[in-house]
Amino acid sequence: MGTEVGTEVGTEVGTARTGVIHTPHGDIATPAFIPVATKATVKTLTPEQVRQVGAQAILSNAYHLYLQPGPEIVDEAGGVAAFENWHGPTYTDSGGFQVMSLGVGYKKVLAMDTVHHNRNDIRAGEKERLAKVDEDGVDFKSFIDGSLHRFTPEVSMQIQHQLGADIIFAFDELTTLADTRIYQEKSVERTHRWAKRCLDEHDRLSRARADKPLQSLWGVVQGAQYEDLRRQATRGLLELDRQARGEGKRGFGGFGIGGALEKGHLGTIVGWVTDELPADKPRHLLGISEPDDIFAAVEAGADTFDCVAPTRLGRRGGVYTLDGRLNLTGARFKRDFTGIDEEFGGYVSENYSRAYIHHLLKAKEFLAGTLCTMHNLKFMIRLVDNIRAAIQDGTYPEFKAEFLGRYYAPAASPTQ
Amino acid sequence: MGTEVGTEVGTEVGTARTGVIHTPHGDIATPAFIPVATKATVKTLTPEQVRQVGAQAILSNAYHLYLQPGPEIVDEAGGVAAFENWHGPTYTDSGGFQVMSLGVGYKKVLAMDTVHHNRNDIRAGEKERLAKVDEDGVDFKSFIDGSLHRFTPEVSMQIQHQLGADIIFAFDELTTLADTRIYQEKSVERTHRWAKRCLDEHDRLSRARADKPLQSLWGVVQGAQYEDLRRQATRGLLELDRQARGEGKRGFGGFGIGGALEKGHLGTIVGWVTDELPADKPRHLLGISEPDDIFAAVEAGADTFDCVAPTRLGRRGGVYTLDGRLNLTGARFKRDFTGIDEEFGGYVSENYSRAYIHHLLKAKEFLAGTLCTMHNLKFMIRLVDNIRAAIQDGTYPEFKAEFLGRYYAPAASPTQ
Repeated sequence: MGTEVGTEVGTEVGTARTGVIHTPHGDIATPAFIPVATKATVKTLTPEQVRQVGAQAILSNAYHLYLQPGPEIVDEAGGVAAFENWHGPTYTDSGGFQVMSLGVGYKKVLAMDTVHHNRNDIRAGEKERLAKVDEDGVDFKSFIDGSLHRFTPEVSMQIQHQLGADIIFAFDELTTLADTRIYQEKSVERTHRWAKRCLDEHDRLSRARADKPLQSLWGVVQGAQYEDLRRQATRGLLELDRQARGEGKRGFGGFGIGGALEKGHLGTIVGWVTDELPADKPRHLLGISEPDDIFAAVEAGADTFDCVAPTRLGRRGGVYTLDGRLNLTGARFKRDFTGIDEEFGGYVSENYSRAYIHHLLKAKEFLAGTLCTMHNLKFMIRLVDNIRAAIQDGTYPEFKAEFLGRYYAPAASPTQ
Repeated sequence: MGTEVGTEVGTEVGTARTGVIHTPHGDIATPAFIPVATKATVKTLTPEQVRQVGAQAILSNAYHLYLQPGPEIVDEAGGVAAFENWHGPTYTDSGGFQVMSLGVGYKKVLAMDTVHHNRNDIRAGEKERLAKVDEDGVDFKSFIDGSLHRFTPEVSMQIQHQLGADIIFAFDELTTLADTRIYQEKSVERTHRWAKRCLDEHDRLSRARADKPLQSLWGVVQGAQYEDLRRQATRGLLELDRQARGEGKRGFGGFGIGGALEKGHLGTIVGWVTDELPADKPRHLLGISEPDDIFAAVEAGADTFDCVAPTRLGRRGGVYTLDGRLNLTGARFKRDFTGIDEEFGGYVSENYSRAYIHHLLKAKEFLAGTLCTMHNLKFMIRLVDNIRAAIQDGTYPEFKAEFLGRYYAPAASPTQ
């Protein structure tokens, strides 16, 4: 069994806060940046390299690992952490986002405001329509081979128990900013009913698999850009948690904040949710992308966040610097023998020149992705580490102003 | 300046021998396996990982680095070792093999016994004919963009001086086993004339660039499968060396053995060459492929050898074990939770299961290549380390019999 996930709140500045999340595989000092290991590997890195850049925990995807290698394989290996040789805390996403967005293409969904209203037969041959939601769950086609599969809240829980991550998420419905208000209301209600089913199945599985390390189920708050829906969804999850605990069942160990968030309103929306949440439960913001999002999320009271940008950008030669983002494929780096960011430092900037990485990118060498990924993860992780220290020291406003003022200074970001 | 490459012979068993090669970037205990870093990176690995698997030196290619990023870039970076963050000895191949084989395709050349007799206008549009040899040098087309280039012995020396490896090779002509005896004779004579031009240019460049670490030029012995041609070629190089030293010029610091070698005769052919060579100069066998080749090469008196097999195989999931080779893409590894070779051990076998690497291969994850490459290099490097120890201990015959008997046992190599 071992300890269940729990959190201790440290310093608070407004709604920003520091804390510690305890898991059976170790502690996470928060705020914390959680690198994405979609298919049980942080792309291009060994676990030692992931540790070297300062990661405290990593997040894998139930959808991808369900299709390949299959959750029973990961279970036999002793869970996702043992499978991938990662001696630390792990999260898995529920698969909700992926079953509804992959294949259809998330951006395409955003552009099609009627998509949820004619999610009809996916077998009928509409090429882009790879998922169909009904009250019980979601039918979807594999992005690998087009085979048909079905996820329900129960299936997602079963898969996530087999994967064995310390922190798992309730199965929710993905909506987009383009969905109608009426659809968002229905979706929040459906996600609420699914959350109840997740709690029940999670409780059953925790008892059935009592020999395994205890996993913590986090409810996921949807509600798009609507304050009343976000608050209603949060209160609904808290009510489910109380009911479950009242029945002697396991409740939610924390909460995830999901859904398409308009960049300009990210902090506001997260703030509505954390305003409703109790202080002693950790909050994870699912899928953000930019340094300024991290400040907004922390200020609104989020504790952890995952983001594919540092790894995805890195494989294409995009790198962060204190003066903004660069893309090292640019010809101007051919004879640039300085490090990526010598002021920032770290293993990559101290040992490799931009010219060398430019060469590796042009030659399509694997090592380009490894080095840029290591640099980017280090950059994001250290940024959040510095934010945590600044909250503790009472210097957060100054740190934020200095970092953002420089990072987003127009003249300093030549390739933005 | 620094020390010139030199070698000290240690234990000898028959013609097999141990020794130490001194270079400005450190010593190489021989026999030694030299991993290939074609484009200034051992594919998929950081230099720390290359060091971790026990590599003492790495070998890059003048042809590839000439085309990309260009030798002047590497020169500005302080030479290939500094460019790629490798703090140890380096070799560069002359580019002779690559200009004549890439594009044309080496296997295609082997199958075309008339190829050397109608190496006519490469501009005329024959698609496969990307190189044309004349007395002065070779015209060839870039494998990257089809642009036209010309290598001569002087150009190869200039490039290799800019690349700045500790050990560089004379520019030679590539022949194949399918070439006629008459062509082989002419080619050996041409390679001899080119070797003289390499010595002259190397001497000139060493003086012109006296501020750089001293590089060691190694002559390359050709002569295909003919004993008289191999011996003649070797004696010819030794005569050139004596002449150069007599004129106060720099001679050859060692020798390379090149050309297509029929596997069954590898030891015999290398033996003819080393029989002619002085004991105090190191000998490098260019491009071998299998564990049994290493034993044959060592017994015939070779000190170092390079081989793309461990890295190339590894990226495709092919791995060495003490019981022969496996390919981890096979479905039978899906639930195999043992390490690649637990008896062999090492970082990869101790920390990752065959099932995990199988998953990474199926998911086309970069880390698959990294882990298989690390394992394979460790396997080959430790094999040669063990051979060196066995020669020193006087247990070489027993070690060889045990290793080869097991590795090539038919029942033990299920996927061969």
